[in-house]
Amino acid sequence: MSEMLKVAVLGAKGRMGTAAVAAIGAAQDLELVAALGRGDSLDQLVKLGVQVMVDLTVPDSTEANVRFAVDHGIHAVVGTTGWSAERLGALESLLAHHRQTGVLIAPNFALGSVLATRFATQAARYFDSVEIIELHHPRKVDAPSGTALRTAALVAAARAGAGVADAPDATETELDGARGASVDGIRVHSVRLAGLVAHQEVLLGSPGEQLTIRHDSFNHESFMPGVLLGIRTVGTRPGLTVGLDGYLDLES
Amino acid sequence: MSEMLKVAVLGAKGRMGTAAVAAIGAAQDLELVAALGRGDSLDQLVKLGVQVMVDLTVPDSTEANVRFAVDHGIHAVVGTTGWSAERLGALESLLAHHRQTGVLIAPNFALGSVLATRFATQAARYFDSVEIIELHHPRKVDAPSGTALRTAALVAAARAGAGVADAPDATETELDGARGASVDGIRVHSVRLAGLVAHQEVLLGSPGEQLTIRHDSFNHESFMPGVLLGIRTVGTRPGLTVGLDGYLDLES
Amino acid sequence: MSEMLKVAVLGAKGRMGTAAVAAIGAAQDLELVAALGRGDSLDQLVKLGVQVMVDLTVPDSTEANVRFAVDHGIHAVVGTTGWSAERLGALESLLAHHRQTGVLIAPNFALGSVLATRFATQAARYFDSVEIIELHHPRKVDAPSGTALRTAALVAAARAGAGVADAPDATETELDGARGASVDGIRVHSVRLAGLVAHQEVLLGSPGEQLTIRHDSFNHESFMPGVLLGIRTVGTRPGLTVGLDGYLDLES
Amino acid sequence: MSEMLKVAVLGAKGRMGTAAVAAIGAAQDLELVAALGRGDSLDQLVKLGVQVMVDLTVPDSTEANVRFAVDHGIHAVVGTTGWSAERLGALESLLAHHRQTGVLIAPNFALGSVLATRFATQAARYFDSVEIIELHHPRKVDAPSGTALRTAALVAAARAGAGVADAPDATETELDGARGASVDGIRVHSVRLAGLVAHQEVLLGSPGEQLTIRHDSFNHESFMPGVLLGIRTVGTRPGLTVGLDGYLDLES
Repeated sequence: MSEMLKVAVLGAKGRMGTAAVAAIGAAQDLELVAALGRGDSLDQLVKLGVQVMVDLTVPDSTEANVRFAVDHGIHAVVGTTGWSAERLGALESLLAHHRQTGVLIAPNFALGSVLATRFATQAARYFDSVEIIELHHPRKVDAPSGTALRTAALVAAARAGAGVADAPDATETELDGARGASVDGIRVHSVRLAGLVAHQEVLLGSPGEQLTIRHDSFNHESFMPGVLLGIRTVGTRPGLTVGLDGYLDLES
Repeated sequence: MSEMLKVAVLGAKGRMGTAAVAAIGAAQDLELVAALGRGDSLDQLVKLGVQVMVDLTVPDSTEANVRFAVDHGIHAVVGTTGWSAERLGALESLLAHHRQTGVLIAPNFALGSVLATRFATQAARYFDSVEIIELHHPRKVDAPSGTALRTAALVAAARAGAGVADAPDATETELDGARGASVDGIRVHSVRLAGLVAHQEVLLGSPGEQLTIRHDSFNHESFMPGVLLGIRTVGTRPGLTVGLDGYLDLES
Repeated sequence: MSEMLKVAVLGAKGRMGTAAVAAIGAAQDLELVAALGRGDSLDQLVKLGVQVMVDLTVPDSTEANVRFAVDHGIHAVVGTTGWSAERLGALESLLAHHRQTGVLIAPNFALGSVLATRFATQAARYFDSVEIIELHHPRKVDAPSGTALRTAALVAAARAGAGVADAPDATETELDGARGASVDGIRVHSVRLAGLVAHQEVLLGSPGEQLTIRHDSFNHESFMPGVLLGIRTVGTRPGLTVGLDGYLDLES
Repeated sequence: MSEMLKVAVLGAKGRMGTAAVAAIGAAQDLELVAALGRGDSLDQLVKLGVQVMVDLTVPDSTEANVRFAVDHGIHAVVGTTGWSAERLGALESLLAHHRQTGVLIAPNFALGSVLATRFATQAARYFDSVEIIELHHPRKVDAPSGTALRTAALVAAARAGAGVADAPDATETELDGARGASVDGIRVHSVRLAGLVAHQEVLLGSPGEQLTIRHDSFNHESFMPGVLLGIRTVGTRPGLTVGLDGYLDLES
């Protein structure tokens, strides 16, 4: 029987942390040996022989947590935001002295969303037209969503890099706003509808065909497969990895 | 064996006319006895015993054609535009003297589109949120489409009539155009994509559920079932009917 | 200021009951005056002047609850199952002696689902082809879903009633099961996918066009608008109504 | 100004050939110097200085055409079927003596379809559940479609290779066929609907999220971008390439 990987969750009482504790507990190859909250000492991570630390805390404490882990040869999977370029640089310097240790910093753990963005970006240069529709619950305060803005920017860059012409558009008379927002030339439409959570469709069209890549996020459970993938993979990827994409095997 | 209905097509060489001639020819209960073009005399309609005339000509000639038909007791199915309120009034006066004769004037023969608009309008009052996405080929010059504008106006009127509150929307920061155009308070989003023809989605949402009514029009064949329904029904509906809706049996 | 309607919920601690209590509490025109559980006496409904009783209990007790309500001139909205033809007959007899009192017995309170089934049934006769795809979470034990079976039966009956031919299908070689199950001649496909809840698509097609009617049920909140509609309407509909459809205004 | 690439089309009068002739004619960087039909001599390809030959002929003649091209240092883009393993082997032997010459043999030129299959295959190992819905016109004789069978086999292989468990499925009672056909354990559902052409959806689900990859093929125009990509790329890829995938740049 293979040994289970010893995992600790920091920020275990938050929404993401609670879900992570449950997901790790349910995984047969992982052993949750510590679930820490604010104020708990990190020393026990060492005593308990933790191999992978999952940091789901707050921007103020994540850097110290991760540095502690690296200093003690514990791999770290980090979902906390607030990692500036400066912080990332300092972390890389530290990792240069701990060549066996891996750190994953992932702004988005939803595998489906990460894959959808990647596929849309790859496909973008091969179609005449690309537009994005994002659909969210009506309590959302910003339009378009951050994910849609990032997808549009990546799509636009991919098309520019490949020298693709602007999408054809003969619109002469437009009721204000009908054609959506333009993000680097890519049209983005934001739907706000009661009942929805977070959804995005990238529509790619050329004469005679359409490719649609849609991601639906129904609840926070969707982040857990990404967290588990991070935990299982981080030990085999020494150094710093930013973005879950780096752990996906998309060669086959 | 039941006798076939004798049908004539006016404007038989146009795009719609050509399709109508083919569709009538393929229908086992209909007999195409005349396919007339510009300049052909209407007198033969009488000689040939035509029972239903299909007018797919041009705004300049449709009124005279229909009046000729009514005067001779021939039912008329009309797809030509250009029927002003004044023309419609004059036609009704004429029909008052020909109480057995029916005329259908239909701006849209696509059954699916007619049904989609009707269903969306009926459902609109029962949901917190309604938004419309219309998607067309990129050669279209207007945005939103005429169908989307009409659907939005009908949806808005239905909601106003039922005293439904505005859809919830917490948007505070919006990239210009992201939330679409507002048509009587209903958000409409216009996608233009190579490869597409004419498509419309009405999204209706309330906490916990979504209803989506989508119509795809792939080509002009889609008008033919509506034309055939008109031909088969017009004889049983004396007087003037505007809109194919009037011929649909939606009670069951 | 108009007076609020006094409402009581029976079975208030169940999943549906809890949601109903919350929804009624949030409605500005409704006053929740009693939330009863198993063993609570119904006498207080009379003392508190309850106008509408919502029964979300169990098959064993629903009949006695409703008869008590009718005997005391309290309207009843009933979501509990177990109403056999015999029980319904007895209830109608009782209502004949209480001509001001209304009872709604509704097997499905999700407005979107009720509307989707109705629209699909109405449209079915106007298209060459109709197929149904239902998609559910993978813990579901039956395939197809009850809703899909009922929708297929209604669609098939509507087509038979209108004399519509069978949908065209040239399939000669089929991998077992590929074409789905046949329910009265309508093909039904059952998808089971992690992440999903309860979803159904009715696809209707004719040459050149497609009409798609899709309903997504994300959680039990979706039943509440139907419950509220029932509460607000039941007082104006004396006698027995089976099915929420009867309360929908779909004429406009 | 850069020189235009000299292109010849063989099988120029067939459906695909006619479309290719039009597409090449419309491309500003390509010059159509020959459009050959059955019986035309290939010698003129040499005289005219053709750089890329597009073979859209028939299985009986494609091998001789391609060997002629390779012998004369003309690159070949081949859409004709009938390339057995034996033929491919012989072609590779020939190409070993013409190290500057490239040949692309592509069973499917629809970029969107090629991309959709690739993306679905890559994503398959990251989700608990995968099912495929393919939708076609009702004149299709086989179910599932060849593309769906191939996609399912690739998806199943990718999951097996990654050691992914079978998709969860608690179905106990099934109306025969409801759950679709099983292709290497992947469920495939075949819809046949008037109005449709060729469409495929791969649904991937995990708790809390869904990824959907859909491809719609509306007409044969959809093959032309792939043909043009082949023409523009074949000169830079000496040797034999099977499948358009090999020419797609999906690294970014």
